Amino acid sequence: MNNTDKESISLHRRLGGKIAIQPKIRNLRQRDIGLIYTPGVAAVSKRIRSHPSEKYSLTSKSNNIAIVTDGTRVLGLGNVGPYAALPVMEGKAVLYKRYGNVDAYPICLNATKKEEIINTIVSIEPAFGAINLEDIESPKALEISDELERMLPIPVFHDDRHGTAVAVLAALVNSLKVVKKEMESAGIVVAGAGSAGYGISELLSFAGCKNVIVTDSAGAIYKNRRKNMNAYKRRIAAMTNRKMRKGVLAKVLEGADVFIGVSGVSGMLSPSMVRSMGRDPVIFALTNPEPEIKVNAALDAGAAIVATGSYRHKNKVNNAVVFPYLMRVILDKRIKRITPKILYHTAMAVADSVPKESLGPQRIVPEIGNKRIQRNIRAALRNVR
Amino acid sequence: MNNTDKESISLHRRLGGKIAIQPKIRNLRQRDIGLIYTPGVAAVSKRIRSHPSEKYSLTSKSNNIAIVTDGTRVLGLGNVGPYAALPVMEGKAVLYKRYGNVDAYPICLNATKKEEIINTIVSIEPAFGAINLEDIESPKALEISDELERMLPIPVFHDDRHGTAVAVLAALVNSLKVVKKEMESAGIVVAGAGSAGYGISELLSFAGCKNVIVTDSAGAIYKNRRKNMNAYKRRIAAMTNRKMRKGVLAKVLEGADVFIGVSGVSGMLSPSMVRSMGRDPVIFALTNPEPEIKVNAALDAGAAIVATGSYRHKNKVNNAVVFPYLMRVILDKRIKRITPKILYHTAMAVADSVPKESLGPQRIVPEIGNKRIQRNIRAALRNVR
Repeated sequence: MNNTDKESISLHRRLGGKIAIQPKIRNLRQRDIGLIYTPGVAAVSKRIRSHPSEKYSLTSKSNNIAIVTDGTRVLGLGNVGPYAALPVMEGKAVLYKRYGNVDAYPICLNATKKEEIINTIVSIEPAFGAINLEDIESPKALEISDELERMLPIPVFHDDRHGTAVAVLAALVNSLKVVKKEMESAGIVVAGAGSAGYGISELLSFAGCKNVIVTDSAGAIYKNRRKNMNAYKRRIAAMTNRKMRKGVLAKVLEGADVFIGVSGVSGMLSPSMVRSMGRDPVIFALTNPEPEIKVNAALDAGAAIVATGSYRHKNKVNNAVVFPYLMRVILDKRIKRITPKILYHTAMAVADSVPKESLGPQRIVPEIGNKRIQRNIRAALRNVR
Repeated sequence: MNNTDKESISLHRRLGGKIAIQPKIRNLRQRDIGLIYTPGVAAVSKRIRSHPSEKYSLTSKSNNIAIVTDGTRVLGLGNVGPYAALPVMEGKAVLYKRYGNVDAYPICLNATKKEEIINTIVSIEPAFGAINLEDIESPKALEISDELERMLPIPVFHDDRHGTAVAVLAALVNSLKVVKKEMESAGIVVAGAGSAGYGISELLSFAGCKNVIVTDSAGAIYKNRRKNMNAYKRRIAAMTNRKMRKGVLAKVLEGADVFIGVSGVSGMLSPSMVRSMGRDPVIFALTNPEPEIKVNAALDAGAAIVATGSYRHKNKVNNAVVFPYLMRVILDKRIKRITPKILYHTAMAVADSVPKESLGPQRIVPEIGNKRIQRNIRAALRNVR
């Protein structure tokens, strides 16, 4: 265990969990109880029954979200189960509150079957204004996210899919500015075809990237590949790899401009693979807690820009710069459906949050606390539905 | 709408809900993020995976409870649905926090079938240290509470059953002291055979009351009654009404010492029924928001002691004097099962929280903020399992 690990465990033990409930009335007098509880609260219940839309103004639903996981794919740790997933969900809840003023409730499920997960989420919807799906293995997570979108009256934000894609696109736009390459033509290889890989493919395709290849453990994904496919990989095949290139990662990465690692496999990118890439390689090694390649190893191998998903390094391509801010706007505007258009404009707003003068190899994404992010996303989505 | 109702609605609108999430770290610095979120949090997840019992010390599970309702039996309003139930659950969450320092999450279910409710609660268990069942119609609520007790690794506190019974027994003990009658022999009539009526019967029976009759809309419940029965009413029949008295409420109430109204029917107790009771009648008219009889009407009809469940009146026999404090001890001691013995000792502790010198017709239960309650319950349960 390294020092960060030790310090983290002792901090968690000292706090006994990272979040608590806070009543909005600080000094509760006896007569307030008659207003917030019985008898007064009965009038509020009756009002909501007769005017259903007022559930948003009279309760905390408008600001509540559920962070739902089954613990089957937590960080790069894999299937740690719902109990071990809880500290990660609490961490997200802290960031949601601190940066987006969103009240996020961790819901860790003792259920891993798709139908059970869907039924539970449909059941618990009434108290929440949105659902954040988190750390559920794919393609199950993608199926759940698509089905819930059809079933629920509230939006479903699938952070591994939507949040990661936005963070990646924002970082990509800025990186390509730094290395002076074009989105449309840049050769981009995405390692990983889970929720993140799928979401990234979807969003890069929407953003006009025409030279993207996605790989999984069976190598490049292409149309009509037989091995190791599912409905979402078939969609990836339809959106990417126009030249139908085949072969292992090391092969398709030769001459490429950008590597985007969302593989869940630490250390899978070797220095020689980086050396095989084109001029000024851009490396996003986003698997957590340990990336696809160590930052120094990638730099030593000639990478022009290196980013990870971890708060240990500079250039943090982490959805934490996205989810608190985007969710704030989703809740405020009562956006019902997370579309590629919304994600695209959000990514541009995040990218723009790095001031031009400070943009550089070590500064391709804004720091999480950057005040421009919220302002920019709100402005970018003002007229987007 | 009366003034309290108007004031309550405008307060709710101003607050936009009554609870929020509060991170336990107030000033989150960039380096803290690496501890509470990735990469540091991964060590905490791994630790819980390898040492499962540490989920209690490393997360907020140990202090979290879910207040679960389907909105089918909210206050005395009936089936208002899960959205209209939310303000009531938020009100409970405020009291849980303020008086018990318990973090309670309202979970309002879009599901009313018993199996769906059970499955959802079993699914969401991992983030919670206890479940509070609330405002679910009976006998479904009783069945759910019994089944969950067998299925879940955490305690199930059924407030309408357990909390109300404790508040009633505490108030009863003190009332009988005031009117100088004995628990064992006092004639007690309970109107209502739902969750509260069942819980009260169970606890009064455990406490040694030998002269209890429970009525429902079909009149007194007795062994082998045919009409309008269910498994729980059969158990009520087995625990009460030894003399097998039959007939409507007005009839069995004649000459009785205590009326306990948990009927859900406002105004169902008439002054003449009060006048038909024995010496110094004790009236607990606990239906909310409007009681079985108005306080003044009961006093005018000769009641020695009148209590309601509402914060509008003195003598509030409301589970709010129970649930925050009892749950605090349940969580601290990791009590797994809510037994009659636990409830009995809790009731005695609540009763004892009214100082002898102030005990009187207008003071049979402690005020919710009374600091003795927590101390007394903790002491009373020190050696109880």
